[in-house]
Amino acid sequence: MNGRTSCVVRPTLEKTSYGVGRTTYDRDDKPHEECGVIGVWSPEPVDVAGMLQLGLFALQHRGQEAAGICVSNGQDLVIEKDLGLVAQVFDDERMKRLRIPGANLGIGHTRYSTTGSNLRFNAQPLNVRSSKGILAIAHNGNFVNAKAIRQELLEHGAVFQTTNDTEVMINLIARYAKLDLVEATARSMRELQGGFAVVLMDRHTVLALRDGNGVRPLVIGRLPNGGWVFASEPPALTLVGAEFVRDVEPGELVWVEAGELRSLQVLEPRPTPCAFEWIYFARADSVLEGIGTHESRVRMGEVLAAEAPAEADLVVPVPDSGIGAAIGYSRASGIPFDYGLYKNPYAGRTFIQPTQELRDLKTKLKLAPTPAVRGKRVVMVDDSIVRGTTSGRIVQLLRDAGATEVHVRISSPPIKFPCYYGIDTAARKELVASTHTVEQIRGLIGADSLAFLSEEGVKRAVGGPVCLACFNGRYPAGTPEGEGQKEALEQA
Amino acid sequence: MNGRTSCVVRPTLEKTSYGVGRTTYDRDDKPHEECGVIGVWSPEPVDVAGMLQLGLFALQHRGQEAAGICVSNGQDLVIEKDLGLVAQVFDDERMKRLRIPGANLGIGHTRYSTTGSNLRFNAQPLNVRSSKGILAIAHNGNFVNAKAIRQELLEHGAVFQTTNDTEVMINLIARYAKLDLVEATARSMRELQGGFAVVLMDRHTVLALRDGNGVRPLVIGRLPNGGWVFASEPPALTLVGAEFVRDVEPGELVWVEAGELRSLQVLEPRPTPCAFEWIYFARADSVLEGIGTHESRVRMGEVLAAEAPAEADLVVPVPDSGIGAAIGYSRASGIPFDYGLYKNPYAGRTFIQPTQELRDLKTKLKLAPTPAVRGKRVVMVDDSIVRGTTSGRIVQLLRDAGATEVHVRISSPPIKFPCYYGIDTAARKELVASTHTVEQIRGLIGADSLAFLSEEGVKRAVGGPVCLACFNGRYPAGTPEGEGQKEALEQA
Amino acid sequence: MNGRTSCVVRPTLEKTSYGVGRTTYDRDDKPHEECGVIGVWSPEPVDVAGMLQLGLFALQHRGQEAAGICVSNGQDLVIEKDLGLVAQVFDDERMKRLRIPGANLGIGHTRYSTTGSNLRFNAQPLNVRSSKGILAIAHNGNFVNAKAIRQELLEHGAVFQTTNDTEVMINLIARYAKLDLVEATARSMRELQGGFAVVLMDRHTVLALRDGNGVRPLVIGRLPNGGWVFASEPPALTLVGAEFVRDVEPGELVWVEAGELRSLQVLEPRPTPCAFEWIYFARADSVLEGIGTHESRVRMGEVLAAEAPAEADLVVPVPDSGIGAAIGYSRASGIPFDYGLYKNPYAGRTFIQPTQELRDLKTKLKLAPTPAVRGKRVVMVDDSIVRGTTSGRIVQLLRDAGATEVHVRISSPPIKFPCYYGIDTAARKELVASTHTVEQIRGLIGADSLAFLSEEGVKRAVGGPVCLACFNGRYPAGTPEGEGQKEALEQA
Amino acid sequence: MNGRTSCVVRPTLEKTSYGVGRTTYDRDDKPHEECGVIGVWSPEPVDVAGMLQLGLFALQHRGQEAAGICVSNGQDLVIEKDLGLVAQVFDDERMKRLRIPGANLGIGHTRYSTTGSNLRFNAQPLNVRSSKGILAIAHNGNFVNAKAIRQELLEHGAVFQTTNDTEVMINLIARYAKLDLVEATARSMRELQGGFAVVLMDRHTVLALRDGNGVRPLVIGRLPNGGWVFASEPPALTLVGAEFVRDVEPGELVWVEAGELRSLQVLEPRPTPCAFEWIYFARADSVLEGIGTHESRVRMGEVLAAEAPAEADLVVPVPDSGIGAAIGYSRASGIPFDYGLYKNPYAGRTFIQPTQELRDLKTKLKLAPTPAVRGKRVVMVDDSIVRGTTSGRIVQLLRDAGATEVHVRISSPPIKFPCYYGIDTAARKELVASTHTVEQIRGLIGADSLAFLSEEGVKRAVGGPVCLACFNGRYPAGTPEGEGQKEALEQA
Repeated sequence: MNGRTSCVVRPTLEKTSYGVGRTTYDRDDKPHEECGVIGVWSPEPVDVAGMLQLGLFALQHRGQEAAGICVSNGQDLVIEKDLGLVAQVFDDERMKRLRIPGANLGIGHTRYSTTGSNLRFNAQPLNVRSSKGILAIAHNGNFVNAKAIRQELLEHGAVFQTTNDTEVMINLIARYAKLDLVEATARSMRELQGGFAVVLMDRHTVLALRDGNGVRPLVIGRLPNGGWVFASEPPALTLVGAEFVRDVEPGELVWVEAGELRSLQVLEPRPTPCAFEWIYFARADSVLEGIGTHESRVRMGEVLAAEAPAEADLVVPVPDSGIGAAIGYSRASGIPFDYGLYKNPYAGRTFIQPTQELRDLKTKLKLAPTPAVRGKRVVMVDDSIVRGTTSGRIVQLLRDAGATEVHVRISSPPIKFPCYYGIDTAARKELVASTHTVEQIRGLIGADSLAFLSEEGVKRAVGGPVCLACFNGRYPAGTPEGEGQKEALEQA
Repeated sequence: MNGRTSCVVRPTLEKTSYGVGRTTYDRDDKPHEECGVIGVWSPEPVDVAGMLQLGLFALQHRGQEAAGICVSNGQDLVIEKDLGLVAQVFDDERMKRLRIPGANLGIGHTRYSTTGSNLRFNAQPLNVRSSKGILAIAHNGNFVNAKAIRQELLEHGAVFQTTNDTEVMINLIARYAKLDLVEATARSMRELQGGFAVVLMDRHTVLALRDGNGVRPLVIGRLPNGGWVFASEPPALTLVGAEFVRDVEPGELVWVEAGELRSLQVLEPRPTPCAFEWIYFARADSVLEGIGTHESRVRMGEVLAAEAPAEADLVVPVPDSGIGAAIGYSRASGIPFDYGLYKNPYAGRTFIQPTQELRDLKTKLKLAPTPAVRGKRVVMVDDSIVRGTTSGRIVQLLRDAGATEVHVRISSPPIKFPCYYGIDTAARKELVASTHTVEQIRGLIGADSLAFLSEEGVKRAVGGPVCLACFNGRYPAGTPEGEGQKEALEQA
Repeated sequence: MNGRTSCVVRPTLEKTSYGVGRTTYDRDDKPHEECGVIGVWSPEPVDVAGMLQLGLFALQHRGQEAAGICVSNGQDLVIEKDLGLVAQVFDDERMKRLRIPGANLGIGHTRYSTTGSNLRFNAQPLNVRSSKGILAIAHNGNFVNAKAIRQELLEHGAVFQTTNDTEVMINLIARYAKLDLVEATARSMRELQGGFAVVLMDRHTVLALRDGNGVRPLVIGRLPNGGWVFASEPPALTLVGAEFVRDVEPGELVWVEAGELRSLQVLEPRPTPCAFEWIYFARADSVLEGIGTHESRVRMGEVLAAEAPAEADLVVPVPDSGIGAAIGYSRASGIPFDYGLYKNPYAGRTFIQPTQELRDLKTKLKLAPTPAVRGKRVVMVDDSIVRGTTSGRIVQLLRDAGATEVHVRISSPPIKFPCYYGIDTAARKELVASTHTVEQIRGLIGADSLAFLSEEGVKRAVGGPVCLACFNGRYPAGTPEGEGQKEALEQA
Repeated sequence: MNGRTSCVVRPTLEKTSYGVGRTTYDRDDKPHEECGVIGVWSPEPVDVAGMLQLGLFALQHRGQEAAGICVSNGQDLVIEKDLGLVAQVFDDERMKRLRIPGANLGIGHTRYSTTGSNLRFNAQPLNVRSSKGILAIAHNGNFVNAKAIRQELLEHGAVFQTTNDTEVMINLIARYAKLDLVEATARSMRELQGGFAVVLMDRHTVLALRDGNGVRPLVIGRLPNGGWVFASEPPALTLVGAEFVRDVEPGELVWVEAGELRSLQVLEPRPTPCAFEWIYFARADSVLEGIGTHESRVRMGEVLAAEAPAEADLVVPVPDSGIGAAIGYSRASGIPFDYGLYKNPYAGRTFIQPTQELRDLKTKLKLAPTPAVRGKRVVMVDDSIVRGTTSGRIVQLLRDAGATEVHVRISSPPIKFPCYYGIDTAARKELVASTHTVEQIRGLIGADSLAFLSEEGVKRAVGGPVCLACFNGRYPAGTPEGEGQKEALEQA
C-alpha cells in the first residue's frame, strides 16, 4: 500500500518520524505480504478492542512492522497505532485507552512495510475529519493509479500527510462531499485501479470492499450476537468467535446498515486471486475461496513429486514454510519425511550482529541440521526462491552435516516479475529467477538438482483461477501508469 | 492555538494518541503561555537542527509540554516532534535524524498544551503536502474565527487531522492553489482573526508573520553569515549567535527571498502587545518592542510601592517570578530585600503523590521559608494571582516560620477575564478575582494586607500600548464568535 | 538453582528489585529447564562477547527469563545481565560495553526462573571480589544441601546478597582463602550435593565442572585457534565455530592452564543423566553422551507405537515438541503423518489478556487445527503431560475441527515427583499424574484413548543410564535435607 | 563513600552495570556533596515509603545521581534503588512495591557519584543477609582506612560485591557474629576512621551514627505519633512532619529500642563540622549545630564587603549559590543589589551537545545577563571557585552585556586541597587555587579585581569550630593511609 512508485520522486522522500525505537525484525528471503485488515460491528456494546486485538494477532503473519486499532462508540473514536508486533503495540496501557465505554465497532490493521517506509506515520488505520465526520481506513493492497489521482486532488487545494496511497482513497471519498458515505466509497472504487481489500469506518458503521479481481482476500463472519466481522483470513473470524459466512466478492462493497449486511456489486467481478496466498502467505488453517491452504500445499508437493521426482532417502522440509509441500512430496514419492532441519524458535525476531569473523551466521542462527541427515540423500522442500541466497546456505548446512546429495524442490514457479498488488518481492533485479535459468540457479545454490513447480501445477493444486503475474508478468489489474506493463513486455 | 471553543462539540473529543509515556509537569498557579516559535534561514549549509534546538531551549519557558523541529536542505524535509521538554525530545538519536546533509533552513516550536490536549498528535510544527509542495508551520496564539473557516473548508471536500486551529491556516493557504506561497499566506492573514505569531516554511524559504495587534511577540535577527532568524524572544537570537535586528511589526509578513529579507505590511497595525509578556512570561533578559522585561518589572515594583506602601521589615520575593518587582519595591520603599523563601530547584518538574495524611505538600515541596523571616513583618511580592490557592499557602508558610505580619503585593491587576489570544489563564470561574473583591481575596489568602498594581500602573511601568483584556475584558483582536465579548459586556 | 526450600522461611521472602519492566513470557504446560551455561577461553584476543552471545542464543531454549555475560581481558572484568531474552538483553549498547579491548575469556548464562524469583538480582553470572580476586560463576542445577552450608557460613561472619544457592558455592570457594582456585573449587565440589553443571572464571582462566551423577549436561569444544569452549549443549559449540571434543565427565573438574585443558576427577562418577534432556529439553540437533536427541525421540515414538498402537487415519504432532515422536509413531505404525495443528509463530512470547467472555483463548492463540483433521481418526502425539490442562484443550480443538476420534500418545512416562536437580515441573500437587490414574487423566482430557511411554521404553529409546526420578521418585543425587526422599517414600 | 583511593588499583576497575539508560546530569564547577541520608521509625504502621520519598526529595541537593529506599514491616524488607533523581527513581510502580502492608521503618539515600562510578550497583542503601538477619545501610562520607580493613576481611574468606567502602562497614558488623547489632556497630565505629554519617537498619530498628569529628551533618526529629526520624538536614524533618529535636553528637550512636531513643557516646567528640555545609551545600533554610545557613551566608557577604570593598554600581549574585552573600555584600557596602544574571530554570538537568561552531555554550545555556548591567560597574558575588572556568565565562558574559567593570567576590577561601570526608572537589591538580595565586586567577577569569573571604572570615561568619581542610590541608579526621597528609605537608 505504500506508493512505492512515487518514492522515486525526490521531494517525497522526506521523513516524518514520531519517536521511540522499535524491534528490528529479521527479514528472510521470502515474498512479503503487506497487510492484514479486520473490521467488527456489533449490535450492542462489546469488547471491540479486545476482539480486534485477537483478530490482528491471528493476522500477524500478514504484517509484522506496525499495527493499529480504531474503535468507536458512536460518539468518541479512538485510534492507537505504532510500529511493532500486535502484542507489543497493544500493551495494557493502549488497550485501556481503546476500551472506551459503549464501543460497538472498530477496524484494525497489521502492516508489513516496504524498505525505508517503516515509519510510525504510515501505520494504519489512517483517520481524517471530513464533511462526513470522522473516517478511518485500513487497506491491504495497492492502487496502481494513485499518483495521477493525487495530483488532481492537490490542484484542487487538497493537502496530504503522507505519500501513502491509502490517503488518496480517503481524500477521494471526502471530495464527494455531497454524496453519503456508501455512495462516495462506491464512486471511489470506480476511480481506483489495482488490487485492494479495504475496511472503512465512521462513528456508526463499518464498510468492506474488494477490487474487481479479488486479488487480496477478504472474508465475512457473523458473531453469535448478530454482529458482523470482516477479515483478511478466516482464522481471524474463528479467534474472535465469529462464524465464517462467505468471501467478499471481487468488486463488491458490503456494509452494515440497521443491523443488516448490505451489498453493492460496484465493479464487474473478474476473479484472479493471488496464487501466493495458497503457496505461502495465508495460514495453514485458512480456507480462501473455498480452498484450504494446507491441502493445496500438500497437493503442490504431490504434483511436484510427479513433475520432478528424485532418487533420495529423506524428504526434509525447510521449516515452517516447506512443511505442507514436503508432506505431499513424501506421500507421492514414498520417500520418508523427516525433521532434518531444527528451527530455533527464537530466531524470528532477533537481530544479532556478530563481528566480521562470524559472518553469514544469519541462516545458522535460525536453522541447524539434525544428525538424521548424515549419510543420506536429501530432498529439501521449500515454497519459493526470491534471491536464492538463503537456499544456498541451507544446502551447504545439509552438506556440512553429512548429507551426501541435496535435491531442492520448490513448490512454486520461478518468481520473475514484481507484484503491484501489495506484495513486496524485492526489486526486479534482485529476483534471481529474473536473470538466471533454473540450471544457473542450481549452480548458485550448490544443489545436486533443482526443480520448480510449473504454473500449470499451481493451477492444478489450487483448483481455481489465480493471478500468476509475479511468475509470468501478466497483470490482470493493471500496472502503475504503464511502467510495470512495459517491463513485463520487454521480458516477454 | 488549540481550538478550545470547538472542544465542547462532542464529536471532536476523540483522542488519537501515539504511544510513549511522558513526564508529568507540575502546573503551578500561573497564567501559561502557549507557545514559542523560531525559524532559521542560512545562505549556506549550517547545523540548522542544532541552532533550532538551542533556540527552542531559550524559549522553553513559553511551553513545556511538547517540542518540534523541522529542517530542510532544499530537497528533503525532516520533522521530529514529541511530548516533553526540549532536552528530552531532542536526544542524540533525534538530532542525528535532523542533521541531514546540506540543511540550511528550518523552524521549531515549543508548546504548552491546554488541559486534555496533551497529545503528541498536536505537537508542532504541523506539515502537509500541498500543491505548493511540502509546508510546515509553527504557531503561537489563537485564531478566534477558526471554527467558521474550518466548516467552510470541510464543505469543499477538505480533510483535517486534528481540531487544532493551526491546521485551518495551513488548509487555507493550500486552498489558494493558484497563488504563490507569499500571496496565499498574505490572503490567509486577511481572513484569520485573533492574536498570532507564525513561522512557516517550504523546502526553500521561511516566512514569519504577526497579527495586526501584535499580541504575541516575534523578533528578527541576523546571523554573521548573512542568514536570518525569527523567534518569539530575543534571547533565542543571542543563543544561536544572531544579532537582534527589530521586532516583526504588527500585521507584517516577512520572508527570505534571494538571501534578502522581504516585507509586506498585510494588515493595518494597531499595536496592543500582551501586557503579561512584561509582567511574567518573557524572560528577564528579553527586550520586547524596545522595552526590557526585567527593567519594567523593577518599575512595576517601584510603582506598586508608591501605590500601596507597607510598614514592614523585609521585602521577600516569591521566587523566581516575584524577584524583579521585589527589588523595585525594596528600592522605592527602603525596606531591606531578603531571600526569605528557599525554592527547591528540583520541584519544577516533579510529581510526588503523597498519601492523604501528607496532603497539601505541593507548595511545601517547592518553597520553604528561611529563618530570616522569624519575628519580621514581611512584604511578600509576587507577579500575579490566578486562583489564589498557592498565595494563601505561602502566606501560611511564612507565618509558620515566625513572620509576624505578611503584606502581599502583586505587580499586576486582578485577572478577571479569559485570554483568547494564546494564554491559558484557567476558566473564568476559577479566576478568584473574577468573583471576589480584593478584600475578600485578602481574607482568603490570610494576608494582613493585599494590594494589586493598577492598570494605569502597568501602562506606566511598561511605557507603551498594551493589551489588558484579561484585566478589563476589552479584547482588541476580537473574540471567538462573539462569546467572550458578551461575557465581557455582562461584566462591565 | 534457586533455593526453593529456603523460600518457605518467611524472613527470606523480601524482594530486592532493580527496576525496568520486562517481557512477560507465556508459560506453557511443560517442565522447564532452569539454565544454560557457556564458557570461552582463547589463547589470543577474540570477540569473546560476540561468541558468548551466539552461544547463549543457541541455548535460549534452556532459559528465557534472564541472560548474562561476563568477560575479561586479564585485567578488567565486565558483567552485563538482565531479565529478558538473549536478543533483548544484549542490545548494541550492552554488547559495546562487553567488547573490552583484549578480551580473551568469559562465561555466559541463560536462566529460567521459578515463580516469584524473576528478579534481576538473581540473574547470573554472579560475581564477587574475594581473596582470589574477582570470580564469576554460572550454574545449571540445584545444590540439595545449600541451606545447611549457608547457615554455617553465616555463623562465621559471611554475608549474602540473595537466597540463591549459587552464591553459597562462591562463598564456599572464597572461604578456602589459603587454597588456589582449582583446589578450592574441587573442595567445594566435595561438600556440595545435588545435580549441577557449573562454569566459573577469574580474570585469567575458565573452569567447568559437573556433579558426580552428571545430571545436567556439559560438553567441551575446541576453537580453531586452540581455544576452549564449555557449553550445556553441542549446538552452542557449533554456532561459535568450535568443534565438539567430548562431554565433561560426571564428577570431573576441567580448566584451562597454560593453554592446555587440565582435568581432575574430583568425585566418583555414577552417571545418571536426566532423561528429560532427550525427551524434551535439549535441542533436536543435540547429541548428549553420544546419543542424538532427535533420533531418540523418533525411537520413543516407535517404541510407543509398539507399546500402545491405535486404529487411526492420521498421526498429528503437537508442534513443536511432539514432532520427533510423531514421525517415529507414524513410521512404526504406518499411519500417515500430517501437520494437523497450525502453530502461530508469534504466540510464544505474547501476552494478550482478553476479557471474560473470551477466556481460555491461550491455547487457541497458539494452536489451530488445519482442515486436514476433518472426518479423521487422529493420533495426537506429545512429549509429556504436566498439569494436563493444555492437552485437554488441544483434544477439544481437534474435535471442534471435525476429528472423529482423538487418541493421545505421550512419549514419556507420567510425571509424579518433583525434580530437585534444576527442573521446574510445577508443585507436586499440580502434577496431574501424581494424583490421577492414566484412565482418570484420559477422562479429564477427553481423549478416546491415552497412553504413556513406559520407563523401560525411555531407557530403550535413549540407550544409556538415565535419571528417572520425576517418574519414579528414586533420586540418585540426594534430596534437600531428606524432604523429597521422604515424600518419595510415602508415595512408594 | 566510594573508595576513590582503591580505584587506582587496576583490578578493581571492572564495571558491573545493570542496564537502563539514565539522565545525564550537567555537572557545574562546584564542590559536590556525596550523599544525603534519612531513617524513619514509627511505633505503628505508616506510609514509611512516602515519608522517605519526601525526605529524600528535601535532600536531593546532596546527591542527584542515584536514590534508594529500604522499608520493612518487621518481616519483609524491600529495597528499590536506581540511578536518577528521587522523582525519577520513585515512580508510581516503585512506590507501589515499597508500600508493603504494615511497614513501620525504613532508610533512604540520595547519592552524588564520583566520576566513573555512576553505576546502579553502587546505589544505596546496600543490603546483606548476615547472621544478624538482613541489614541495610546508607552512608554519607568516607572511611579513610577502608582499604586496610577490606584486605583483612578478604583474607578471612569474605567476599565483596563492590569497591564501595560502605560495604566494608557492613562486613565488619557481620564479622562480629556473636555481638548484637548495637554492639557490633559500636565496635565497627571504633575501627573505622574518617568523616561519616550513617543510618542502618534491620527488620526491627533503625540506628544512626556520626564520626567523632561530626564532619558530616545528621539530625534527629520526632514524629507526632512518637516515632523518630534521622536525616542529614532539618528540612527533611519538616517535610515529613517531624519536629527538630537535636543534632546527633559527634561520635554518638543512637537507635530506637522499645519506642525510646537510646544513645551511646562511642567515640570522644572533637567537633569540626565541614565549613562547606554553611558556605554552599546545605539548603538555605537549614540550621546545623544551631547555626542558620542563609544567615551565615549573609554574614559571609558582610565580612567579605569589609575585607574586600569595591567601587561599584551594582551587586549581582551568581544565581542561586551567590544570592545570600550578595545580599550581605550589598547591605554592608550600600551598593544596590540587582538580578543581573537570568538563570534558565531548565538548564540544570539538560545535556545539549552543539556542534563545534557553537561550543562553550554550557554557561550561556544556563546564565544570561539582563540589560540591568549595561554601563554599570558590577560586583559579581559567588560562593566558591573550583576550576575557575565557569567564573571566567560569567565575567565575559557580563562584559559582553555592557558591564564596564567586573569585581569578583568569593565568599570562601581558595580551595587548595582535596576533601577525604565525602566531598568531590575535583582532583588536586584541577583546583585552580592549588597552582595559582589570587592575582593569577584574577587574570585567568578576566576580572577587574578578585577577592576571597579569609579563613578567619569563615570562622567569624559561621561562629563555631569547623573543618577547613580543603582550604588549609589540616585534616582533623585523618587521611587515607597517610597519602593526603603527605601531600598536605609538601604543600605547607
